[in-house]
Amino acid sequence: MIRRLNDAIIARDAPIVVGLDPNLKFIPEGIKEAAFREHGETAEGVAEAFWQFNKGIVDAICELVPAVKPQIAMYEQFGLPGLAAFDRTVRYCKEKGLIVIADAKRGDIGSTSESYAVGMLGATQVGDASVRAFDADFVTVNPYLGSDGVRPFIEVARKEDKGIFVLVKTSNPSSGELQDLVVAEGEQAGKPLYEVVGALVEKWGSDLMEGAYSNVGAVVGATYPEQGRILREIMPHAVILVPGYGAQGGRGKDLAHFFNRDGLGAIVNSSRGIIAAWKEEQYAKYGAEGYADAARAAVLAMKEDIHGAV
Amino acid sequence: MIRRLNDAIIARDAPIVVGLDPNLKFIPEGIKEAAFREHGETAEGVAEAFWQFNKGIVDAICELVPAVKPQIAMYEQFGLPGLAAFDRTVRYCKEKGLIVIADAKRGDIGSTSESYAVGMLGATQVGDASVRAFDADFVTVNPYLGSDGVRPFIEVARKEDKGIFVLVKTSNPSSGELQDLVVAEGEQAGKPLYEVVGALVEKWGSDLMEGAYSNVGAVVGATYPEQGRILREIMPHAVILVPGYGAQGGRGKDLAHFFNRDGLGAIVNSSRGIIAAWKEEQYAKYGAEGYADAARAAVLAMKEDIHGAV
Repeated sequence: MIRRLNDAIIARDAPIVVGLDPNLKFIPEGIKEAAFREHGETAEGVAEAFWQFNKGIVDAICELVPAVKPQIAMYEQFGLPGLAAFDRTVRYCKEKGLIVIADAKRGDIGSTSESYAVGMLGATQVGDASVRAFDADFVTVNPYLGSDGVRPFIEVARKEDKGIFVLVKTSNPSSGELQDLVVAEGEQAGKPLYEVVGALVEKWGSDLMEGAYSNVGAVVGATYPEQGRILREIMPHAVILVPGYGAQGGRGKDLAHFFNRDGLGAIVNSSRGIIAAWKEEQYAKYGAEGYADAARAAVLAMKEDIHGAV
Repeated sequence: MIRRLNDAIIARDAPIVVGLDPNLKFIPEGIKEAAFREHGETAEGVAEAFWQFNKGIVDAICELVPAVKPQIAMYEQFGLPGLAAFDRTVRYCKEKGLIVIADAKRGDIGSTSESYAVGMLGATQVGDASVRAFDADFVTVNPYLGSDGVRPFIEVARKEDKGIFVLVKTSNPSSGELQDLVVAEGEQAGKPLYEVVGALVEKWGSDLMEGAYSNVGAVVGATYPEQGRILREIMPHAVILVPGYGAQGGRGKDLAHFFNRDGLGAIVNSSRGIIAAWKEEQYAKYGAEGYADAARAAVLAMKEDIHGAV
């Protein structure tokens, strides 16, 4: 799957993933009104608004970018109807040829991680039938439980030709509280925790290679460019999923070190900066009805910003 | 909520939580056949089997224990129908007076953690309506992203009088790979990561106290009794949720140090050891049809084992 992602990045000349993280605050009134008229002010109404909103964005950007990253929390917040909108969004994006990264940050003890991995990427045998749950292409994984919590995701990814992105250095302000702690002993003495995790990502990926890259990627926030540079060296075969661009403060110039010399090795996420672009002064001319066109324009501007920097 | 949990532990004289982690391997053929007859070999069929199985267990144990802990991965694996069975199980357990710990190990950057917290514990305002998603009483939280990934859970818990359990030292074999790394610098120099996280749990809980305990608890595996002893001292006000008893190898004698001198401060989880008891030789006399009675007998045996040790 990482080869497919890299090929799509090259074909569209855009190392960009659009975060499909809908929020009622970003959704044009017209979409919300129609959804609430049909379903009332209920979770079903919100789910319908999410779906209609997403569909508009996806139709506008699907030929510009290789991938989307729906953040499942936004949907889970609205219970089963919300998760049905997540499911529908994943399916629709795949129909439109987009690669889907389920941003779910799952991770547990081994047998439970296996269930999460199957739920997000794989299939379960039920009698003679094979049942697929969410069927995304990649899932984000939290490494706090160590190798035996991550390996089941790798095994399912191998079987299904899919991939994972492991949290290494996250984009949030307090990510350093644990991730930057310097290790005192052993092979990794003197290194911060995120480097230890980065080395594990490289190791985990070593037997899941496709060409120059592995199906075990890493999440490193655009808000930490210096750490990005170091992690780029530690994990030469990992594609880095880079959140934190745009609304969280990361800028094109921060991204240069996340890429390898082949121009690959990173894919930059923007969520609010794209899907809520119509609310920014810069894109105000599109109006609420043109929210999807504003998203398209914001993707093109992001592409230019990244090309200028990389 | 932690007061309610402690009161229920005292009232039932059982610091025990039953893990509702259904698996087709544990479910009696009769239940599966009926469910598949109605829904076919589909996710809906599995979900119906999960629900019927859970209902039997819950009816048999609801007067013996204070709490249950459904592991959401088991349900998520079967997509939307699976999650509907999770939802139904949570609601039913609450109707039966049980406290529900959603074992979801969520955690993300701040704004996303807020959505997860609302989804598992809280409510969202939609127009004039308040929408609740899963409405559990506690949720397990992964601390890898640091304080700003955990605080939103604490804020929602405060608002809703609910609580969280933060992963500190997990029960799995490779939990030490990151969690045992010794920190080189700063206030916590010389201490392993799990102690750093334990100190954070105590700090996070300090303004969410109810009586002698806080609504910020910790997860520490029964498989690591020595670490449990240390963490008990570091987190005097945290209730420790202890997985790993039974099927993962933890025994009653390993549990003594997880409790405080008041006899409280820990709640021990068993999943397979209870819900799949009917498959063990010891409980074979109950047969498949008596699976719920076997679960009840296993709870009573576990109670005795813990009382003998604590």
